[in-house]
Amino acid sequence: MEKRGKMRILVLNCGSSSIKYQLIDMETESLMAEGIVEKIGEDIALFTYKSEKYTKKKREMVVDNHEQGLQLILEALIDPANGVLNGLDEIDAVGHRLVHAGEHYSDAVKVTEHVIQVMQECVSLAPLHNPANLKGIEAVKVNMPNCPQCGVFDTAFHQTMPAMAYLYPLPLELYTNYKIRRYGFHGTSHKYVSLKAAEFLQRPLESLKIITCHLGNGASMTAIKNGKSIDTSMGFTPLEGLMMGTRCGDIDPAIPIHLQQQLGLSVDEVNNILNKKSGMLGLSHISNDMREIENEVLVKNNPKAIMALDVYCYRIKKYIGSYFAVLNGLDVLVFTGGVGENMPILREQVCRDLEAIGIKLNLEENSQRTDGIQVLSANDSSVTVLKIPTNEELMIARETKRLLS
Amino acid sequence: MEKRGKMRILVLNCGSSSIKYQLIDMETESLMAEGIVEKIGEDIALFTYKSEKYTKKKREMVVDNHEQGLQLILEALIDPANGVLNGLDEIDAVGHRLVHAGEHYSDAVKVTEHVIQVMQECVSLAPLHNPANLKGIEAVKVNMPNCPQCGVFDTAFHQTMPAMAYLYPLPLELYTNYKIRRYGFHGTSHKYVSLKAAEFLQRPLESLKIITCHLGNGASMTAIKNGKSIDTSMGFTPLEGLMMGTRCGDIDPAIPIHLQQQLGLSVDEVNNILNKKSGMLGLSHISNDMREIENEVLVKNNPKAIMALDVYCYRIKKYIGSYFAVLNGLDVLVFTGGVGENMPILREQVCRDLEAIGIKLNLEENSQRTDGIQVLSANDSSVTVLKIPTNEELMIARETKRLLS
Repeated sequence: MEKRGKMRILVLNCGSSSIKYQLIDMETESLMAEGIVEKIGEDIALFTYKSEKYTKKKREMVVDNHEQGLQLILEALIDPANGVLNGLDEIDAVGHRLVHAGEHYSDAVKVTEHVIQVMQECVSLAPLHNPANLKGIEAVKVNMPNCPQCGVFDTAFHQTMPAMAYLYPLPLELYTNYKIRRYGFHGTSHKYVSLKAAEFLQRPLESLKIITCHLGNGASMTAIKNGKSIDTSMGFTPLEGLMMGTRCGDIDPAIPIHLQQQLGLSVDEVNNILNKKSGMLGLSHISNDMREIENEVLVKNNPKAIMALDVYCYRIKKYIGSYFAVLNGLDVLVFTGGVGENMPILREQVCRDLEAIGIKLNLEENSQRTDGIQVLSANDSSVTVLKIPTNEELMIARETKRLLS
Repeated sequence: MEKRGKMRILVLNCGSSSIKYQLIDMETESLMAEGIVEKIGEDIALFTYKSEKYTKKKREMVVDNHEQGLQLILEALIDPANGVLNGLDEIDAVGHRLVHAGEHYSDAVKVTEHVIQVMQECVSLAPLHNPANLKGIEAVKVNMPNCPQCGVFDTAFHQTMPAMAYLYPLPLELYTNYKIRRYGFHGTSHKYVSLKAAEFLQRPLESLKIITCHLGNGASMTAIKNGKSIDTSMGFTPLEGLMMGTRCGDIDPAIPIHLQQQLGLSVDEVNNILNKKSGMLGLSHISNDMREIENEVLVKNNPKAIMALDVYCYRIKKYIGSYFAVLNGLDVLVFTGGVGENMPILREQVCRDLEAIGIKLNLEENSQRTDGIQVLSANDSSVTVLKIPTNEELMIARETKRLLS
């Protein structure tokens, strides 16, 4: 095995029945291996992985819990025939993608007993995600007892929001006693692309007014001033804000009540509809996958797809205006995430008729599908519009490296 | 009794236990008499009224229903000693403030059997208001069988919104089968002040991009292009949008669900909290009355009042930005309604740091409390900011006159 840079970090993103991972060489910031264990706890789990040394492989087996799942991943990394490491001691640290820490942390953290306690306290705020994150931390403890663990909470970057942005006009005790406020999510992605934008433009982040649009199956937007999040579209939960793949985003808060009182649905049914059956899937009756929507619009001229895309883009446009007002100006608009990076017609529709905001797209450039960062705005656009591929894992690895050095 | 202009219109605004009225001389558009019967159906009702001939009077009596309430009003109008009319035949028409007609009418209507049927069909969309409006129509039929009745629905002005503004990202069948969409309210007020703004500025309404802020105990904003509403902040119900006296406005739609699933509240309790215990009252713990909030801010420097006002103004600012984007520019910003017309510190705070939108207030002029229309913007503000007293009753009377001629 050739000699490598001094630090290798394993980034883990643990869901309730899955572990996604990337092993990153921090000397070169290059990806050594990546993969996912899915369907943990089900009859048959699926392990998909690849590395510098081998192309994608798939294996099926029984995986009872996260501890066994992580064991599989580590075995593949040090496999004598195909592995990329000589031993687990070559992993200098684990960096976790964590979800919810309430108001406790505004920066990456070393995982301590106190951090674990905070995550337990915040389980009611993220009932699916925090327990899964905790299982991941425990699995590392068992499999790699001497390896330092760090974590970056999805909510951390947004902790700089002022009270006027995070308080809801609800009885104040719902905030003081029950922690109901705007938290925001996707923080690691919004932070990463804002740093990347400043670096790319060779301007100090502190001098820029930036709006970042992270558009994937989940979607959120953030207003960034002096490098800090001052408002974001997701709220108490990831349901608020933009229209998403299957989530409704902003609606009249009387609607969940009306569905129960007038249409006789149960609260669980309503929850399921708003989170799983709404958004692009619900309105288009086609798919939550924007590639299918794009195809229906471009190839088939399908009116339902066109209408759903109209609503999707219109709502992004409204947030751009909203954050333009909050920032009192705008220097950079960033598109990122699977949809933001790969859907020219969406970006074109969002940016159309926004001259008043200073946005003018270079349609030719916007229509190119290339890797890497692209400047999408025209030369005479006062706002620079960028496409920046996001990389949350690298951001987590960088934060972990910073904490350990 | 002196000779008057040819047309007198009685404008009625019927609530579930009240009738508000104005008698308007349409030759001069002057108010001949006005008043309110309250607590209809309760043990003791209260009748408050005044006219050109007498200052405010109050009477208490039993009023069983709207029919009896209207009878009281009519008797006062034709009272030989103090009345302003010789007989009921001098009332040429009744104009009703009506609430919800779903998608049926985009203009004022003559009240026909078909209109009544539409209002009945829309009861589930406005379960408190439509039945009250219907009682008012019936009371007129009984008391003034030959008098023509017209009505203006609160939703009518907003029927010009495009689908991308009125569709929610919910399963499409909630719209097609259950009529769940954005309707918007306060339409008569938004229309009145936009007409008034164009008239005052002596510019064609069709050339203006206008944002109107109707701020009272209820509050909403509208984006108006070519004289037409293209978006508005209230939605399926009046709960959505801005922070209000006791209503929450925009919140994460997961919150009503969380309050039930995690805090064990019933759906009725949640409904009551969001509509009656939230907004300015809930967040400040002081009052839903903005005059009290203003006093606490200005006189007592009360931090809770300051914080609640911050949230209130911040949310208006976000809508200004949002509609600036949707309109792709802005010519006129209008403040109206009890709060919008009478609270200089609110207008100042909303308009602060909005130079990017082209808004710059004349702080000296803004601090003056005068009757009538005021230009609040500085000479070098590219957006004209106006305070325009609203007059929904006059608007309804004008529409009624137009329909009958």
